[in-house]
Order: sequence, then C-alpha cells, then structure tokens
Amino acid sequence: MKDAIGENDPQALLAAGLRSAMRRMPGPVSLVTTHDDALNAPAGMAASAVIPVSMEPPSMLVAVNRQSRCHAAIEAHGRFCINLLGTDQARLVETFSTAGLRDERFSTSEWEYSDSIPFLPTAMASIFCEVRTTLVHGTHELFIGNAYDVRMRDTEGLDPLGWMEGGFARFGALD
Amino acid sequence: MKDAIGENDPQALLAAGLRSAMRRMPGPVSLVTTHDDALNAPAGMAASAVIPVSMEPPSMLVAVNRQSRCHAAIEAHGRFCINLLGTDQARLVETFSTAGLRDERFSTSEWEYSDSIPFLPTAMASIFCEVRTTLVHGTHELFIGNAYDVRMRDTEGLDPLGWMEGGFARFGALD
Repeated sequence: MKDAIGENDPQALLAAGLRSAMRRMPGPVSLVTTHDDALNAPAGMAASAVIPVSMEPPSMLVAVNRQSRCHAAIEAHGRFCINLLGTDQARLVETFSTAGLRDERFSTSEWEYSDSIPFLPTAMASIFCEVRTTLVHGTHELFIGNAYDVRMRDTEGLDPLGWMEGGFARFGALD
Repeated sequence: MKDAIGENDPQALLAAGLRSAMRRMPGPVSLVTTHDDALNAPAGMAASAVIPVSMEPPSMLVAVNRQSRCHAAIEAHGRFCINLLGTDQARLVETFSTAGLRDERFSTSEWEYSDSIPFLPTAMASIFCEVRTTLVHGTHELFIGNAYDVRMRDTEGLDPLGWMEGGFARFGALD
C-alpha cells in the first residue's frame, strides 16, 4: 500500500528516500526536558535532531514535532534542557519514546531540578537553554535557544549514546 | 589569556562550557556543496551541524558560518547538496577544512555534477535541497531546504563517518 502511494506521489517517494538516507546518518541521543506549566509537571522527549548553532551567542537548536506534548510545553515555558545521554542510559530512552510509559519518565530518583526544569546529573552533559527564536517548517518547529547553563559529568570511561539504522549505537575511534 | 577573558565574561565562560559539551556530542560528517555563481565554480564545506527537519515536506537543515565563502554561495545559488560521508572518505574532509587546500577540493574525479551542483556518488547518501527558509542567529545562518532528490550508494560493508572529541569516529552496534 505504501509503495502504491509512493509511486503516485513524488513527495511521498522523496520522503521515503530521505527516511532511508537518514537511517545512515548517525547521531547523538538526547532527552530534551522542560516544565509543563499547564500540568505543573516535568515534560520531556527523546530527540536526535539537536545541533549547536553558534558560540556567539552560545546556542543550540532542537527540532520538535508540533503535535507533541513537549512542543506545547517548551513553547509555553520558554526554557528547555538538552541532556546528552551516555551508553549506560539507553534504557531511559524507551520510557520517553513510548506514550504508555509517560508516567514512568520522571519517576526515578535520577532526575534533579533547576528552576523546575528536570535534568540528568548522570548525562554526558546537560545544556540549559532559553528560547530566543523559533521557525516552523512543515510538521516541525525549530527552537533556537541561548545556553544559560552547562553542566557536565565526569565521563571517564563512558561513551556517548548514538542512534543509527534505527537502533542504538556506540562510537569508537577511527582506526 | 583565554582563561583571564573567560573569568571576566560570563558569555565566554558559557561558550567554553558549550564547546566542551559539544566535544561529547557525536555526529555525522557531511560535505555540503553548491555552485558558486560569482566564481562559476563548485563550492563546499565540511559540516557537522546537519539535521533532518521534517518528512512533510522532506527537508533538511544546515548551519553555516556567515563569514564562510560557502555561505555566500548557498545564499546566491539557493540550492545545496548534503553528502553524508563514509569511513573510507575521511581524507576528503581535510581538503574542505583547510583554506590552503581549496584548489584541491574538487580536483579529483570522484565528483559528479547535477545541474552544476557537485555531489559524491561514493557518499553514503547525497541529499539535494532547495532553500526555502533561512534564519540568522549570531555568527551562523540556518538554511532549511526541501529535498528534491536523494541518491544513495550501495553501502554494504561500509559505515558512516562520525566526529567526536575533535576527531573522526566510527559507529558500531551497542552491545
């Protein structure tokens, strides 16, 4: 059925091609967190589309689906935290990627809070940002935030968690 | 001297912290290419700040330093190509990261052209985009382009090239 749609729709064909290409594009795995002002509760999402924008000012970008709950929360609260995960934190991603596990996301004692925004002291790094600019493109909104705090764990012996080919990955030095 | 500046300047301290955090953020390595209309020549840059934006429409984002030659070329030409590199293409990155090697960048026979835009048929994937929206933030401009062509190589046995801790990296499955 998907193939039938694709053949008749150049945009669907392009999207299928881009999805295949993106499986080959490795990336880091982050938990982007914020405070949901409407629910007065922590909110978060697993994100792979996270990049630095500039060092002047120090700033980061995250692409967020406009239909997601986290999108509304970031938009309302105006601040978010990017928690870069290590390979020992893959299990955390499942609770943030499964709607049915929503209640378990912040139930562990791993989380700490800074001005009501949850962060993981055990992450490779936690980058707190204040939204400065946004841009909507199709299904997603880009939040560009200026960093106002950066916290880093002692990562001796730990590797950042990666995502590739639809699964978790580990990074190693190139021979 | 840098430390002295940092201690007196909260922004410089934040930038130093963000730079350290970014060393822990693994990512893919791409060569972003375009046609320089002013020079009537191919242009390109090595880029790590590349992400997918949306599948509706199929679109990609690249963050480009506004001082770079490639920035002016993309701005003028309005189209670019993201070539996702494999681990066998690390040597190509050097010519694109060193100003003195500018003339060597497109001198090899590896490059092919599509409507005057250079692309690498040997890349993991080549994603051709047409600029639809841009956003300036500090030193960088974000180019958001809708994909109009995606070409993929048979990558059997090949791995995508990564960048981490200031050096090349390889991705492997998480145990």
